[in-house]
Amino acid sequence: MTAARKRVLSGMQPSGLMHLGNYLGALENWKVLQESYDCYFFVADWHALSTNYADTSHIREFVREMLIDWLAAGIDPQRATVFVQSRIPEHAVLHLLFSMMTPISWLERNPTYKEKQEEIKEKDLGTYGFLGYPVLQAADILLYKPDFVPVGKDQLPHLELTRELARRFNDLYKTPVFPEPKEHLTKFPKVVGTDGRKMSKSYHNTINLSDPEPVVRQKLKTMVTDPARVRRTDPGNPELCPVYDFHKIFSPLPVIEEVDQGCRTAGIGCIDCKKLVADRIVERMTPIWDARAKLVQHPSQLDDIVQAGSRQASAVAHATLREATEAMKI
Amino acid sequence: MTAARKRVLSGMQPSGLMHLGNYLGALENWKVLQESYDCYFFVADWHALSTNYADTSHIREFVREMLIDWLAAGIDPQRATVFVQSRIPEHAVLHLLFSMMTPISWLERNPTYKEKQEEIKEKDLGTYGFLGYPVLQAADILLYKPDFVPVGKDQLPHLELTRELARRFNDLYKTPVFPEPKEHLTKFPKVVGTDGRKMSKSYHNTINLSDPEPVVRQKLKTMVTDPARVRRTDPGNPELCPVYDFHKIFSPLPVIEEVDQGCRTAGIGCIDCKKLVADRIVERMTPIWDARAKLVQHPSQLDDIVQAGSRQASAVAHATLREATEAMKI
Ligand code: SF4
Ligand code: SF4
Repeated sequence: MTAARKRVLSGMQPSGLMHLGNYLGALENWKVLQESYDCYFFVADWHALSTNYADTSHIREFVREMLIDWLAAGIDPQRATVFVQSRIPEHAVLHLLFSMMTPISWLERNPTYKEKQEEIKEKDLGTYGFLGYPVLQAADILLYKPDFVPVGKDQLPHLELTRELARRFNDLYKTPVFPEPKEHLTKFPKVVGTDGRKMSKSYHNTINLSDPEPVVRQKLKTMVTDPARVRRTDPGNPELCPVYDFHKIFSPLPVIEEVDQGCRTAGIGCIDCKKLVADRIVERMTPIWDARAKLVQHPSQLDDIVQAGSRQASAVAHATLREATEAMKI
Repeated sequence: MTAARKRVLSGMQPSGLMHLGNYLGALENWKVLQESYDCYFFVADWHALSTNYADTSHIREFVREMLIDWLAAGIDPQRATVFVQSRIPEHAVLHLLFSMMTPISWLERNPTYKEKQEEIKEKDLGTYGFLGYPVLQAADILLYKPDFVPVGKDQLPHLELTRELARRFNDLYKTPVFPEPKEHLTKFPKVVGTDGRKMSKSYHNTINLSDPEPVVRQKLKTMVTDPARVRRTDPGNPELCPVYDFHKIFSPLPVIEEVDQGCRTAGIGCIDCKKLVADRIVERMTPIWDARAKLVQHPSQLDDIVQAGSRQASAVAHATLREATEAMKI
C-alpha cells in the first residue's frame, strides 16, 4: 500500500445473513476494488439499529457471520482495512457534531426516507435515528476522507448529502477538513431469489453464503420455474424462469445456450436444468465454504484480523476527528 | 465518599461567561448538594453547539472560564467529580444508541423546543441536533445513573423524557440498565441585570464572576434605578428599582431597611445607595476573585483537576455503556 493509492470506503449493514445477491452485488465489486485502492470496509452495526432497534438479538451473530463471509469470499485483510463501526467511537462523536449543523429539511427531503418508512411498515420507524441515518453515514464516510465511495444510482442522494455536509463544515469553520468524496458508480446486478422476486432476506428467498451444500441444493430444487411449464413435455420460456437467470450468472455460455434451447423444446426437464445450475453454484461456493470452515475453526484468527483492522481505522478516525475539533476550536 | 451517598448529576452549557445570576441560581445550589451527595458536575460543551454551531470560536475559552468559576466559587473536587462532556465519548455513543429508539413525536412535543426556536430567531435552529438535544441530555444523565437531577420546574418535561427513554430502553432489552432519576426540584432565584430585566448574557446586562472589581463597580454605577427618581430630591420607590433587588440579595437586613426608608423619603441618593450595594457585592465576590487569580496563575492545577474528574467520570460512563450494549447484545 503506497500513499499514492486512492482511498475507497464502503460499509454493509449486518441486518441478516449475507446471500448470493449481496455477494454478487457488493463483495465481487469490493474484491476488484481492493486490487487498486486503499480500501476501508466496515460492518455498519450501529446503522443496523435504525431498523432493528426493537430486536437486536441477532446483530452480534450477523456481525460475526458477515466478517466471516467477507474474508471467506476473498476480501483480503492485507489489502483492505476491515473493521466494525461500533468499535470506533469517533463515528458517534462526529455524528453528534454533524447533527448540530444539519438542517432537518435536508433529511426530510431525502427520497429514501419516506420510501423506506412505507416499505417497512410493520416496524415503527418514526424515530429520531431513522431520520438521521444520513448524518451517521456522512460521519462514517468523512472520517476516512475517501476519494471514492461505491454507490448504486439510487444511493446518489445520500452521497450528495455527505458532500453537502462536508462543504457546510468546511465553510462554517473555514478549514478544508473534509474533502468531498466522489461516487464510484457501481452497477449492482439484479439477482433473483428462489421465488423469482429480487433476492432479499425480507422475502425469505435467499441462498446464503453460510448455507451448507445440501441446503443450497434443496433450495434450488424447490425453486419456482416458468409457471407455464406444468408437465415435463410442456415447452417453457427461459426468459420467464428465475432458474435461467441463475444460469446466466453461473453457467458457461454453451450450457446457457443448451438450456435455452432445451427449455423451449421441452428437450430438458426442470429437474435436470436445476441440477446443472446447482452444480455450478456449488462449484462457485465451494472455496467460500472451505474458507468459512477454516475461519469458524479458528475464531482467534478472525478476532485478530478485526482487531488489527479496527486499530488501523481507529487511528485514521482519531486523527480526522482531531482535525475537525481543532477547526471548530472545541 | 461512601457508596451509601446518593448520586446527583448536573451540567451547564458553556455558552458565555458565568454571571451572578448563574452563580446564585446554580452554583450556590451545587455547593449545598456536594455536602450531602456524590455529585457529578459537567461542562456541557457539546450541548453548547446546538445553539452556537455557527460560531464556536469562544467555546474553548468559555469551558475553561466556567471550570475556573466553578472551582473559585467553591465547587470542591474532593467532593464532586468535575468533568467536561466532550472528553467522554460515551456521551456521543449512548446518544446515538438512544437516537435509534426515540420517537420523533417525543421530541416535537417537547414544549421548550418551539419556544426556544422562537426565542433565538436570529440563528437557524431548524437543525437535527437542536431537535434532538433532549436525547443527548438523556444520555448525559443516564450514563451516571444519578438518583437526583436538580431541575427547575420548567425543565421537568426534559427530565420526564429522560425517564421515558430509560423505561423504553429497559423494556426493549428486558434489562433494568437505567434507573429512573428523580428530580431535585430547585427554586432558582430571579436575578435582575443592570438594565432591570432578567440577568442574561443575551441582554448584555450581566455582572460576570470574571469581571474585575472596577468593572463591577462601574456596571453598578451605571445601573438603571427607579425611573421616577429623576432628581436627587425626588423620592423613589425601591420596589421598582433593580438596585434594591440587589440589596435584598446581598445586603444585611438593617441596610435593606435603611435603603427602603431612605429611597422613599429621598433621604439617600442613588449614588450612595449603589455604593452601599457595590461594597457588599465586592465583599461577596472577593474570595471568588482571589481563588480565580490563583487558578489562573496555576493552569496545571486546573488541568489536573479536570483530568482526574474526567477519568473518574469516564470509568462510570464506560461501565454503564458496557451494560447497555450487553443488554442490547451488540
Ligand atoms: S427448463 Fe430450466 S429454464 Fe426452463 S422452465 Fe425449467 S428450470 Fe426454467
Ligand atoms: S435610592 Fe437606591 S433603591 Fe432608590 S431608586 Fe436610587 S438606587 Fe434605587
